[in-house]
Amino acid sequence: MSDTLGFRVNVKNHLEIGGCDATELVAQFGSPLYVMDESIIRNSCRLYKNAIDKYYGGRGRVLYASKAFSCLYIYKLIAQEGLGADVVSGGELYTAMKAGMPMEHIYFHGNNKTPQELELAIANNIGRVVVDNVFELDRIEAVAAAQNKTVKILFRIKPGIDAHTHSFVQTGQIDSKFGVALETGEAMDIARRAAGLAHVEVVGVHCHIGSQIFELAPFTLAARVMTEFMCDARDKLGITMTELNLGGGYGIKYLLQDDPVEYDAYIKAVAGVVTEVAQARGFSLPYIMMEPGRSIVGPAGITLYTIGAVKEIPGIRTYVSVDGGMGDNPRYILYQSEYSAVIANRAGEPDEAVVTIAGKCCESGDILIKDIKLPKAEVGDILAVMATGAYNYSMASNYNRIGRPAVVMVKDGEAKVVVKRETYDDIIKNDLL
Amino acid sequence: MSDTLGFRVNVKNHLEIGGCDATELVAQFGSPLYVMDESIIRNSCRLYKNAIDKYYGGRGRVLYASKAFSCLYIYKLIAQEGLGADVVSGGELYTAMKAGMPMEHIYFHGNNKTPQELELAIANNIGRVVVDNVFELDRIEAVAAAQNKTVKILFRIKPGIDAHTHSFVQTGQIDSKFGVALETGEAMDIARRAAGLAHVEVVGVHCHIGSQIFELAPFTLAARVMTEFMCDARDKLGITMTELNLGGGYGIKYLLQDDPVEYDAYIKAVAGVVTEVAQARGFSLPYIMMEPGRSIVGPAGITLYTIGAVKEIPGIRTYVSVDGGMGDNPRYILYQSEYSAVIANRAGEPDEAVVTIAGKCCESGDILIKDIKLPKAEVGDILAVMATGAYNYSMASNYNRIGRPAVVMVKDGEAKVVVKRETYDDIIKNDLL
Repeated sequence: MSDTLGFRVNVKNHLEIGGCDATELVAQFGSPLYVMDESIIRNSCRLYKNAIDKYYGGRGRVLYASKAFSCLYIYKLIAQEGLGADVVSGGELYTAMKAGMPMEHIYFHGNNKTPQELELAIANNIGRVVVDNVFELDRIEAVAAAQNKTVKILFRIKPGIDAHTHSFVQTGQIDSKFGVALETGEAMDIARRAAGLAHVEVVGVHCHIGSQIFELAPFTLAARVMTEFMCDARDKLGITMTELNLGGGYGIKYLLQDDPVEYDAYIKAVAGVVTEVAQARGFSLPYIMMEPGRSIVGPAGITLYTIGAVKEIPGIRTYVSVDGGMGDNPRYILYQSEYSAVIANRAGEPDEAVVTIAGKCCESGDILIKDIKLPKAEVGDILAVMATGAYNYSMASNYNRIGRPAVVMVKDGEAKVVVKRETYDDIIKNDLL
Repeated sequence: MSDTLGFRVNVKNHLEIGGCDATELVAQFGSPLYVMDESIIRNSCRLYKNAIDKYYGGRGRVLYASKAFSCLYIYKLIAQEGLGADVVSGGELYTAMKAGMPMEHIYFHGNNKTPQELELAIANNIGRVVVDNVFELDRIEAVAAAQNKTVKILFRIKPGIDAHTHSFVQTGQIDSKFGVALETGEAMDIARRAAGLAHVEVVGVHCHIGSQIFELAPFTLAARVMTEFMCDARDKLGITMTELNLGGGYGIKYLLQDDPVEYDAYIKAVAGVVTEVAQARGFSLPYIMMEPGRSIVGPAGITLYTIGAVKEIPGIRTYVSVDGGMGDNPRYILYQSEYSAVIANRAGEPDEAVVTIAGKCCESGDILIKDIKLPKAEVGDILAVMATGAYNYSMASNYNRIGRPAVVMVKDGEAKVVVKRETYDDIIKNDLL
C-alpha cells in the first residue's frame, strides 16, 4: 500500500485526517481541496517552544515563517501558541494585523521592501525590521524620522554557508540577492552606518542558509559564525546586540525515506554552540529566534483531488489526470519536487502500477507526481497528495483562470473552512470592460 | 543601448508604448505595471486573418488561445477583430461569456474537463468541445443527452511530432497527457466510438505540437499527418470531418536574436500542404483553425518595475532588485526563460555593465533576468521588461501575499486600466477567521 506518512486509514479503508474521512470532506467541500490538520500544526509549534525551554532556558522565540502558508486563521492560531511571525510583504503584514497578531512579535523580511510597505510597518509599530541592504537602511531611517519613531532592526547577513541543497533555495552563500556579506566587511559596514542613525536601534542579526535542509552541521556553523560576528561588532563598534535570528530551512518528510533532523537535536546543538562562543568571548547569551515555516505547516496538509481520466500509453506511461495541478501546487514544475500520494478511498489497497499524476492545466509540464506506485487508479477516485501544507496554497495561481481551492482546517472530527474556494466571479472581479 | 524590440524612445530618452511615456504610466498607475499596446494586438489579429484570406481563400478562423492572457477586455477586443477563442477551463469560458464573446466561436480544450465545466459549456451552447479522451467523450454524451443537445466535437490528436523545443512545452509527442495517439490506432478508435453516439457530432480534429516554435517544418508535417487522418477516417468510418484545427505554438521574439516565422510564410506553407493532400485524396478542403496566443499578445506587452536596491558583490555579480518578480512573471523560475529589458527613464543610454534582475520575493530563485547588459542602474529607475504580454499576468500568483499588478491597455497616447491592481483587502477576501 501507498505510504500515508503517518495519517490513519479508517475501517472503510479511507484516508483520515484530523478525525475526518477524506472522501467525506470532498463530498462536503468539493475538490480540489486543501486540508490541514490543526493538531499537527499546534503540536509542531509546541515542540519548537518546548525545545527552547529545555535547551536554552526559554531565551528565544519561534517566529512562524508565514510565506509557507498565510491566511487570517493561521496567524490567529500561531499567536495562540505563543509564536511570533516572519512576514515578507505588506500583504502578509496586513493579514497578520487583521488577524490580531501582536505587532511586537512580527519580523519584517525581504530584499526589497517598498517605501509603502515600510510606511505601513512603521506606522503600525512593527516589532523588528530585518534590514537587507544600505538603501533600505536609509529608507527606514527616513520613514522613521518622518513618523518620529525608532525602529528596532536586525541585519540580514550572508554567513557564506553552502547548505548542500537545490541552488534555487540556497540563500546563505555570497552570490545571493539577500543581505550583506560577512567576509567582504559589508556586514560590519552597515552596522557601523546604522549605529550613527537616530531613528533605528540595532538589536541583532539574522541569517537564513537555505530550505529543506536535512543536516545539522550547516545550522551549527551558521550559529557559530553569527555569534562571533555579534561579539566582533561589540568589540569594534561598541554595539551590544541581543538577538540572534537563525532563520529557517528545516527539512520535512515529503517521501517515506526523507529523514528530517528532530527539533530537539537542532535546538540542542545550536544552543550549545551559541553558549560556547558567548562564554568564550564574555558575551551575554543572546535571545535565539528561529523561523520555521515549512516544518510547522507542511506535514499537516494534504490536497484532495478527483481523478477524471486515466490514460494508458502502452509501453510508455500511464497518465492519471486530476482536477487540479500546477495552479494549486506548482512545486513539481518549479523544482521537480517529489510528493507521496494515496488513493484516499482505497487507502489500504496494495500498489499495482507506476503512474504519473497530471494536472488539468493546458501545459505539458503540469505534472504533480512523476512515476509513483499506486493501487489501480480509476475515474472518480479521490487522490490525496501528502505534505502539501507549505508552499502550495501560498504559491497557487489562477493560471488557466482556475479558481484556487478552499482550505479546510480539521480537528477532532470537525472541519472548518479557513479560506473559501474562489468562484468564477472572484476571478473576474478586477476585470474592466 | 538596450534593445527595445521595436518600441519607440521619445525625446526625453524615455521608453514609449502606445504613444504613452512609460515613466508617466508608472507615475499615474504605480508599479509594477503590465502595459499592453492595443494596436499591436489588433495588428497581429489582422495579419493572421489576412494571411488566411490570401493563401486559403478565407476558409479558416483564428482562435485566440486565451490562456496566454485572459480577462474580460481581451475577449471583447478579439471578438471585434473577428477572432474566436480557445478556452481551457470553466473560468476562461465564463470570462469569455461575460465579455459577450459569441459562443459559436469558442473552442473548449483541456485534458481533464470536469463534469461541472462541461455542463456549463453545453448549457451555454459552446461552439466546439475538443475531446481529449474516451472518458471525456462519454461524459459529454451523458451531459448532452441530459440537456437534450448535440455537441460539435473535435478530437485532440497526438500526431507524434517532436518540435525541438523545451520538453515542458512539447505536446505533440506520444508521451503526453494530452489527446489520443495516431500511431497506436487510439485516434481512429475514439472516432469510431463517437460515430455511434447520439448527442455528439464529429466535425474535426485538433493537434498542438508545442510552444515557442521557430521552424516551419513541424507545422507542415503536422498539417500533412492530420489531413491524411481526416481522409482515413472518411475511408474507414464514413465520417466526413470539415475542420482541421492545428493549434498554436508560433514563437515570438523575446530577445533581439530570436527569429520567428512570419505569419504569412506559416499559413502559406500549411495551406499548401493541406490543399495538396486533400486534392490527392479527393477530400473537400477543410476549414483550417489556428490558435495563436503568445504571438497575439506577447510582443504587445511590457512590465514596468521600480528599482529598489542595487547590490554589487565585487567580482561575483550585481543584483538589481525590482518591486515585482516571480509573482508577476514566473517564467524565469519555471523555464529559465530569457527576456530583454530597458531602463525606461534612460532608454537611449549606452549599456555599461552586466547585472542580474532580482524580484522582491523571499526566494533565491526569484530572478527575472540573469546576466543582462544595461546602462548603470540606480535606485528609483524604471525598468521595462519586454515581451511580457503572454503568460505573465495569466500565470501570476499572490506568492508572499503580494497583489497582482494592474494591466493597462494603451493606444494612441491614451491609457485604460483593463485589470485593476489587487489590494490587500482583495488578498484576504476569502479568508475566514
